Order: sequence, then structure tokens, then C-alpha cells
Amino acid sequence: MTVPHSPGKQLALGAFLMQTGHHIAGWRHPGAQADAGSNFAHYVELARQAEAAKFDAIFISDSVGVRNRDIASLSRTARSDQFEPLTLLSALAAVTAKIGLIATASTSFNEPYNIARKFASLDQISGGRAGWNLVTSSGDGEAENFNLVKHLDHALRYERAAEFHQVVTGLWDSWEDDAFVRDKESGQYFQPEKLHVLNHKGKHFAVRGPLNVARSPQGRPVIVQAGASDAGRDLAARTAEVVFVAHQTFDEARSFYADIKHRAAAYGRAPDEIRIMPGIFPVVAPTRAEAQEKFRALQELIPTVVGVGLLSQMVSFDLSPFPVDGPLPELPPTNGAKSRQQLMVDLARREGLSIRETYLRIAGARGHQQVVGAPADIADLLESWFRDGGADGFNIMSPAHPAGLRDFIELVLPELRRRGLFRNEYQGSTLREHLGLRRPPHPAAR
Amino acid sequence: MTVPHSPGKQLALGAFLMQTGHHIAGWRHPGAQADAGSNFAHYVELARQAEAAKFDAIFISDSVGVRNRDIASLSRTARSDQFEPLTLLSALAAVTAKIGLIATASTSFNEPYNIARKFASLDQISGGRAGWNLVTSSGDGEAENFNLVKHLDHALRYERAAEFHQVVTGLWDSWEDDAFVRDKESGQYFQPEKLHVLNHKGKHFAVRGPLNVARSPQGRPVIVQAGASDAGRDLAARTAEVVFVAHQTFDEARSFYADIKHRAAAYGRAPDEIRIMPGIFPVVAPTRAEAQEKFRALQELIPTVVGVGLLSQMVSFDLSPFPVDGPLPELPPTNGAKSRQQLMVDLARREGLSIRETYLRIAGARGHQQVVGAPADIADLLESWFRDGGADGFNIMSPAHPAGLRDFIELVLPELRRRGLFRNEYQGSTLREHLGLRRPPHPAAR
Repeated sequence: MTVPHSPGKQLALGAFLMQTGHHIAGWRHPGAQADAGSNFAHYVELARQAEAAKFDAIFISDSVGVRNRDIASLSRTARSDQFEPLTLLSALAAVTAKIGLIATASTSFNEPYNIARKFASLDQISGGRAGWNLVTSSGDGEAENFNLVKHLDHALRYERAAEFHQVVTGLWDSWEDDAFVRDKESGQYFQPEKLHVLNHKGKHFAVRGPLNVARSPQGRPVIVQAGASDAGRDLAARTAEVVFVAHQTFDEARSFYADIKHRAAAYGRAPDEIRIMPGIFPVVAPTRAEAQEKFRALQELIPTVVGVGLLSQMVSFDLSPFPVDGPLPELPPTNGAKSRQQLMVDLARREGLSIRETYLRIAGARGHQQVVGAPADIADLLESWFRDGGADGFNIMSPAHPAGLRDFIELVLPELRRRGLFRNEYQGSTLREHLGLRRPPHPAAR
Repeated sequence: MTVPHSPGKQLALGAFLMQTGHHIAGWRHPGAQADAGSNFAHYVELARQAEAAKFDAIFISDSVGVRNRDIASLSRTARSDQFEPLTLLSALAAVTAKIGLIATASTSFNEPYNIARKFASLDQISGGRAGWNLVTSSGDGEAENFNLVKHLDHALRYERAAEFHQVVTGLWDSWEDDAFVRDKESGQYFQPEKLHVLNHKGKHFAVRGPLNVARSPQGRPVIVQAGASDAGRDLAARTAEVVFVAHQTFDEARSFYADIKHRAAAYGRAPDEIRIMPGIFPVVAPTRAEAQEKFRALQELIPTVVGVGLLSQMVSFDLSPFPVDGPLPELPPTNGAKSRQQLMVDLARREGLSIRETYLRIAGARGHQQVVGAPADIADLLESWFRDGGADGFNIMSPAHPAGLRDFIELVLPELRRRGLFRNEYQGSTLREHLGLRRPPHPAAR
């Protein structure tokens, strides 16, 4: 287990920065910044810590609405105020130098021209550190903020997402890399033959172009996706460069990993064109006993109404009428996040859990892998998933910020470095370079 | 003319940062950063200079497309690459502390929920320095990037804009100022009775809310508008806090100023709830002769194709088939920027100008007031407009950046300060405080 890897075979690590932290009661932890959702200085501190620790990227999730309509539950969680991710990451770009910046943006309620511009701008501002986590929206309370009473059907959402991706990447190639000569003497600003007008006309979008942003330092910002349903996997295999995913077991992880790389091959892509990075929820302390005590204290901070509210949202179904110590009821098929609902049902059924037991199991990791232990325990899990075909890296979802990220950096990273699994210094300066992803050449140069 | 004003009666000044500068050939000037449209460090320098000089705000214009379809002209101007304004200003927020940050965003091709979030986030990130320049889109090459073959009709655009404004400001009031208590002990994150769900259902938008951003430091970001048509003036009188406008003569300025404040009164608003800030294009040098020489050198850098292309865009009509030394032809009514077309026609007719003479007259100021002279000449003009009811302040549109902004700061500001017309230090720290605009109380607190 401790044989050093070659530099090319190291973990990719993302710091998943969800306001006060990933545990549903994390904001109540003494080490949490409770006002994180409105506190920019907090994010500056986190981003700088993650950069000093040489993380590949920070990762900002998103929801275009408050995630829960049950006020009793919502008013006891830190889930109703957050920065808009692109605004936040643009600001963080100015106070960091190396770390990647991955922002979530929905294909459901945006226009591709606007999204293409913003990420291209972020890539310019950051010197090549932008990543776009392309999602379709499915959460409660989102569609109604956008002139709809409910979300588009799951299949249609993914169809729209695929075309959206096509338009955005096409717009990013509006200009060849050397199109802008800006010759003051001759007065030539760009070379006309290096401008490519997209002229996209599809089922969901008609977008002429060109984009009014030069080709960005990375060629194209990195495409990240998190869909795990069949439609989601297919889109990821075709288009994603990083896949962010939730697993409960190593078998799930290995099977998913093999499936995505297999599907990608069918689209003519090489396995190393996609980095698969499951989320990991680590509760770490110098000893296993201390870690367990830390986790127990967090779990005790969850009011029942909050736990039931969280699980209801995860399965897209209101569980509040059901006995909390009874089993998870049969659930109707959802038009929401299908794979997330299935993950919850599988977990409860597999282990025979009640509603309360189920929400306690997901209150921290929310469907992702949870690991509570000493530094070597965490490192063992990451290493085994990495070496045995379950992951190319991980998104670290600390229970409470800033304390949890600091714990991971101080306790786990030294152990990963001892094992040769994580970098000591950045070798490059763009997100693509950190992840070992090639810079896509402009189509005209291929 | 040199009686010092009281501190409450000083000019508001915005630095209008249009990439390489405001003159159409400004990018070719030796003092221009030709790659400004992709050079974030350039903007950092400009923003810091403007802040050190105590400008009220920097102002970023926008177009959601390249502004000109004629490649011969476009390829000789610096108008095809620019940062998306909100991305840029968020990044600049992180490296400045006091100066206001006004970004343009269109109501034509965005969703109000997204715009409300982004500006609220920028206001949080910047500590209360955000302003939204609310525009309707009318430029060439914009509609076709958003699934349309042409823009909405002028009247409908403004109707949509008014409802858009209503939704955005309503969303900004989703939470009372003290809604978020974040009490770790009790587990109460917010007070439910201080949450206000918008439930907007209108002709153009249905938006439930609430916004997932806390009420921002300024209560609401500052609303800026630039429409000068009848519909534009009406919207501004009802909703704007800053009006950005183009005038060719003092009479126009005084008449517009009186009209807006009169219309505002009809909507129950006090005159000092609106700051009117015309654009000014200054070419300044230590002596009048040097300034004229500087301007002449800039004008000589304009190729004919670029001048005709610029004027064509300003009047929303292709002038290239017409003799450049002949008169401006009769123009059909435009669905584009009506007031801008009228401004050009009035100018050409009033002074009997040819197409070439007209484009030379607008190549720098683009319809705004142009003043070429020594520092006292510029100061005289600003002071007379300010004292005689034509303006509450100005947007300074330097010919080339960074040189032009620096010239204004070094040559004109000392003269304005000598006359007591401009601040030596910021008195407050938000854009509202700089402009002397009150922080709007939450409706529930009124």
C-alpha cells in the first residue's frame, strides 16, 4: 500500500465548498462559520487554504432556489443563503493564483450564449483555471422561479443539456487561438479568416455567434458533470472531462467507473480523457475514537424535522406524514434526480433502515461515501478506491468549514503524501494541467 | 464659477471602462492596452487607479454579441472581445475596497431570478458596492444569439424590462435585514416570519421566490438606466437611481434633466432620488493646443470602413452603400436604440454634416458630449452643466486606456478639487453612500 506512485499516477482532489460545510447540522459546529453563505472573507480563507494545500480545484455546487419548502425544516438549516457560484469564483480568481475554480451552472434555466461568455471570461480572468459543472435542474423550488410549474421531463432535460453543451463548446471555438493580432501599426485587430461563426440551429437553441470573448487560456474550460442516471452517464461519457459522483460502496464505484470509461470508448474517447471523482465525506481526528466522538456530536445536532426534510428532498417525496421510526415507504417514480432517489432506496432496503436511521446515515455525506476515522483510515479508503479502479480522485466534502477542511489538510494530506499519492507542488498553472487533461486544439487546427 | 460647494453638492463621477478606451481607434493609441478585452491585469490597474482617485464607481457597458457584422470594419476595431461584466466586476470587487461597481445586464435575454442573485451576490462580495445598469438589448447581432431572428419590439422590450425590474427588486426583499440569526445553540438559522415569498405572476414572468441570497449590504444594489426614448425615460423616472445619458448640447442636457426629475415627481419620487450622469468624452492635455493635437492624431487612426461601420451601428442602418462624403440619407424608423438614432440624425442635420463628418464627430464620444482642451476647459464644462441644471455628475469616457484615465485623474481632478467640486476622500463605503442615495428600508419595515 505504500509504494510511491509515479507523478502521473496521483490523486486529483477537489475541495467541495458548501457554505458552512457538508453535514446538515455542520453550521452549528463550533468550528463552522455560521454566516458562510454571506461571508466572502470566509471563502477567501478556504480558497487560500485549499490552494496552499495544492488541491486541484475548489468546487461550488448550486441550486437556483431554496432547496426546501418546509419552513420548519428550512429555518433550522444553513441552506437558504449562498453566493451565486460564478460571481463567487470570479472574485476568488482575483485572490488566488493556481487552484482550479469549478462552478455549477444549470442548463435548464440559462441561455448557452450567457454561460459560454461567463465561463470563458472566468477562464481569462483566472489564467486558465475555470471548470463548468454542467447540471440539469431538478430540485424543489427551482422551476417555479423560472416561469414553470414543474421541471422539464428528465429525458428532455438531458436532451436540452446535450444540445446546450454543443452550443457552448462551439461558441468557445469562435476564434482560433491566434486570431487576435492587435497590430496598432496596420490597424488590424483580428484576422478575419480565424473567426468561425457557429450558426447553430437545433431543436432547443438557435445561436448564431460568434462569442465576444477570445479563445480562453485552456482552449475550453473543463467540463464537469454529476449525472448518474442512464441519461446522465451517457452525456458524461460523451462530453465530460471530470465526473463527480456519489457512491455508497466500493462495488458501486468500481462498476460506475468501468461503465463510464466503457461508454466513453464507444464514443471514441480514451479512458484518460475523463477523471472520475466521487465525493467523500471524511470525519477525521488524530485517533479513531476521537473521530467517532466528533461525528457523534455532529449527529446529535440534527433536529428530527431537519433530518426528515433532508431525506424528503433527497428522494423527491415528502416523508413527513410517515412514522420516523418506521420503514421508508414505497416511493413513486420521480422526475427529479433519479439516481439520487435510487441511492437512498437501495441504502435503506439493503440495511433495513428506518426513516430516522436513513437520514442519520446521509446527514453528513448526503449519499456520498462517509468515512470516520484516523488519518490512515481515510487514506486507506482513498488509496484503495484509487488503486482498484473506483476513482481517479475525490471531492472532499468536509463536515464543517473552515474546521473540516483544515483537519483534512493537516491530518490526511501528509499521509497521502507519504504514500506518494498527492502532489507537493503544482506542476502546471491551469486546471487542465493539474488534472492531466490535454488542452483541446481548435477544430481548425486539428 | 469658483465658489466652493458644500460637501453635499459635489459631482458624482463614474469611470466608464470600455476595454481599450472610448475612441473607436483608441486601441491604436500608444497609450492604449490593445489586448484589454482579454487582459484582467489591465482592469485591475484601471480599477485601482479610479479608486485611488475616489471615483464613485467604475461602469462596464455590454453587448451580448459582437456589435458589427461587417468583418472588414469589425476586424479593425477592438470590439469583438470583452469580459462579461458581472464576471469582471466580481473579480475586481476582490481587489478593491471602496469604489462602486456598475455592471450592465440585459433584461431581454436573462431571467430575473438569475440577475437578482448575481447582483445580490456582488453586493455581498463587495460590501455594498454593486450597481445594475438595466438595459434592453437592441444591438445588431444580439437577438440571433438567443433563439430569435430579431429583437422584440421596442415597446414590448420596455414592458418586459419594467416587469423584470419589479421581479428583481421584489426578490431582493425576500428576506428582512435581520432574518438570519444563525443561532448555533438553539439551532434556529433564520426567523421564519422575516421571510417574504414573492409569488410574482405577471405577463412576462412567473417567479415564486424567495431569493437564495440574504438581503444585501445596500438593501438593494443601485439601479442604473440609460434609456432616453419616451419609454426609456418613463422607466427611468419610475425606477432608476442613476441615469446614464448621451447629450450633444447643454440645452438637451438641461431639458432631459428637468424632464426626468419632473416625471419622477409624478411617480411620487423626490428629485434627489435620481442622479443624472451624462457621458463625457474628454481629450485633455496641459494646453489646449496639445489636446487638439492629441485628438487630431486619434482621428487620423480611423479607417473609413471603421467610421462608416460605427455610424451604421449607431443609426441601426447600413450606410456603406452611400457616398461617404454625401449627406446622411433618410433613415427608416428603427426598432433598435431609437434615441441614439435620433441623436445622430439631429447632429448631422443641425450642422449639415456628411457621413464622414458625422462619424468623425462621434468616433470618440459616440453621441456623448466631447470636449477637447486644457484641464480648465474640461472643468468649466463639467461645472457649468452641474451648476446650471444639466447633470448631477458624469461618466468619464476616456479615449484610450490606461493613458486617458490617468490624464483625467492627473490633470482634471485637481482642478475640480480646487473648485470644491469633487471629494478628496470617500466619506462612506457603499456605492449608495458615495452617490448620496438612501439605503431602501425593507418594505416590512416601512
